[in-house]
Amino acid sequence: METAAETTTEGSAAGPAPDLRRRVDRALTRIVEEELAGLSGRSAEAVRDAVLSPGKRIRPLLLLGAHRAAGGDVSEPAVELACSVELVHAYSLVHDDLPCMDDDVLRRGRPTVHVRFGVRTAILTGAALMPMAVRLVARAGEALGLPDERTRLLLHRLAVASGGAGMVGGQLLDLRAEGRPVHADELQRIHRGKTAALMEAAVRMGATAAGREEDRLRRIGRFGRRLGLAFQAVDDILDVTGETEELGKAGGRDRELGKATYPSVLGLEASERAARELAAAARDDLEALGGDRVLEEIVQFVVRRRR
Amino acid sequence: METAAETTTEGSAAGPAPDLRRRVDRALTRIVEEELAGLSGRSAEAVRDAVLSPGKRIRPLLLLGAHRAAGGDVSEPAVELACSVELVHAYSLVHDDLPCMDDDVLRRGRPTVHVRFGVRTAILTGAALMPMAVRLVARAGEALGLPDERTRLLLHRLAVASGGAGMVGGQLLDLRAEGRPVHADELQRIHRGKTAALMEAAVRMGATAAGREEDRLRRIGRFGRRLGLAFQAVDDILDVTGETEELGKAGGRDRELGKATYPSVLGLEASERAARELAAAARDDLEALGGDRVLEEIVQFVVRRRR
Repeated sequence: METAAETTTEGSAAGPAPDLRRRVDRALTRIVEEELAGLSGRSAEAVRDAVLSPGKRIRPLLLLGAHRAAGGDVSEPAVELACSVELVHAYSLVHDDLPCMDDDVLRRGRPTVHVRFGVRTAILTGAALMPMAVRLVARAGEALGLPDERTRLLLHRLAVASGGAGMVGGQLLDLRAEGRPVHADELQRIHRGKTAALMEAAVRMGATAAGREEDRLRRIGRFGRRLGLAFQAVDDILDVTGETEELGKAGGRDRELGKATYPSVLGLEASERAARELAAAARDDLEALGGDRVLEEIVQFVVRRRR
Repeated sequence: METAAETTTEGSAAGPAPDLRRRVDRALTRIVEEELAGLSGRSAEAVRDAVLSPGKRIRPLLLLGAHRAAGGDVSEPAVELACSVELVHAYSLVHDDLPCMDDDVLRRGRPTVHVRFGVRTAILTGAALMPMAVRLVARAGEALGLPDERTRLLLHRLAVASGGAGMVGGQLLDLRAEGRPVHADELQRIHRGKTAALMEAAVRMGATAAGREEDRLRRIGRFGRRLGLAFQAVDDILDVTGETEELGKAGGRDRELGKATYPSVLGLEASERAARELAAAARDDLEALGGDRVLEEIVQFVVRRRR
């Protein structure tokens, strides 16, 4: 079990649960170095850059919070399992930033991977991360001593959340919606795919790895989905109201790209209300589940973050 | 078990084992349609185009041949498992053809995915296929009734062959080698990663799914690796000697791109010798394993193919 020192009270400037995040960061470093043995120096550097640049690690923390809330130990294999969702997230960022996609040159306050290493290396770097994530889940399933069908379920969840029915599907819908009017329900489908699917998968995977039965995952899944939608709503709002320096990436890009966002569909005020309501609904789910300190910190962070 | 009608004698113009290939094609169609439920019409069309455009299905046939050679039935779950390696291959083709990569506009005699659907959709289409492959393996493992550690092993193999230690790693080495002199051993490392790794994984996965023990996979693995290197050598040679119409893609691209190839490193004559020797060595491995009609047809095809 975690000690109290593993987490801090809400609202750390650097993001939620900094002690647990440091464990995630250490595991990510170890995993990346293991994987890079066969690559040339420059390719290895690109993978490091994509995965290890400073981040809030929201998705692995969601997995670990849900794992603990479902009675699991935050053991090293659990932390490795949590890293799998961060790898998928990191790959999506590298590809999203490409010149032919959102064409972002700044991410987390640093030049994006394609700016540093070129477009071709960036595409391949992103492509290397999904197989890494799959290997991690298979390995963590073994190290956690999970029964057969649970490892398969973890892989199934990660794959569904990453693919055409999840993240990639949301991004494809996003492309199709650019530069034309979009209704609120279409916006929700886009955001559910491109952002909420992986967050929902993270909490479900954490609970599944702790032995929680399938039919008892509905509420934690809804928590993850609502939190994901709130996260994306705040992201959209910050793109309008935030400063580049504060965001660590260029502001105002959504509008330049004609993206369907909460502010473009609902207006800024209604978007802020929607974000608060989604976060409150997520908090209700969390309370009904008996609460968890890490998950509570993440909810707080999502509502209050400025980047 | 397969009947004799499932395979034909060697050297069919369309590729080896046409009857078995039709089963693979039917399974691919079913799998793609299942996956596409949530996508918009145009995105779904891009995925169909990427996966279902006519191909020789060498990799799934390798998996099924090795599966049968190891005593497995070519059941529908085995065919689905075989489709997983084709999905990974299809994704690699879509990304390889991108303007920022090899910039190919023709593939299998048809416009490439990015030409038809745009670069952004092509990147996302490719990205959707890896998670599909992972889901297939997890599902096939269950349907085949494999013990716990075997499904994990199948996923591990697919992930390793697809990632930084396999296909993507080979492509990264390939990029680094462009436009400069390359030694034969470096060329071998590149080709082993970008081509042979997935073929080796295919035969190992087939044998693993048939219950073949880990320590008895060395020779079938070497067969797959040697065949993969022979395949790539022939591919390099055809890029020099083939006509665009015959190849179904533009010839002479390797030279334009300054790629490290067998002909550029060894010269054409020595490359043809190397291809023959690699295929002969693969055939020796196959004989020592007791032979298999499908695998034998694939070897014949690799040596004699003109596209």
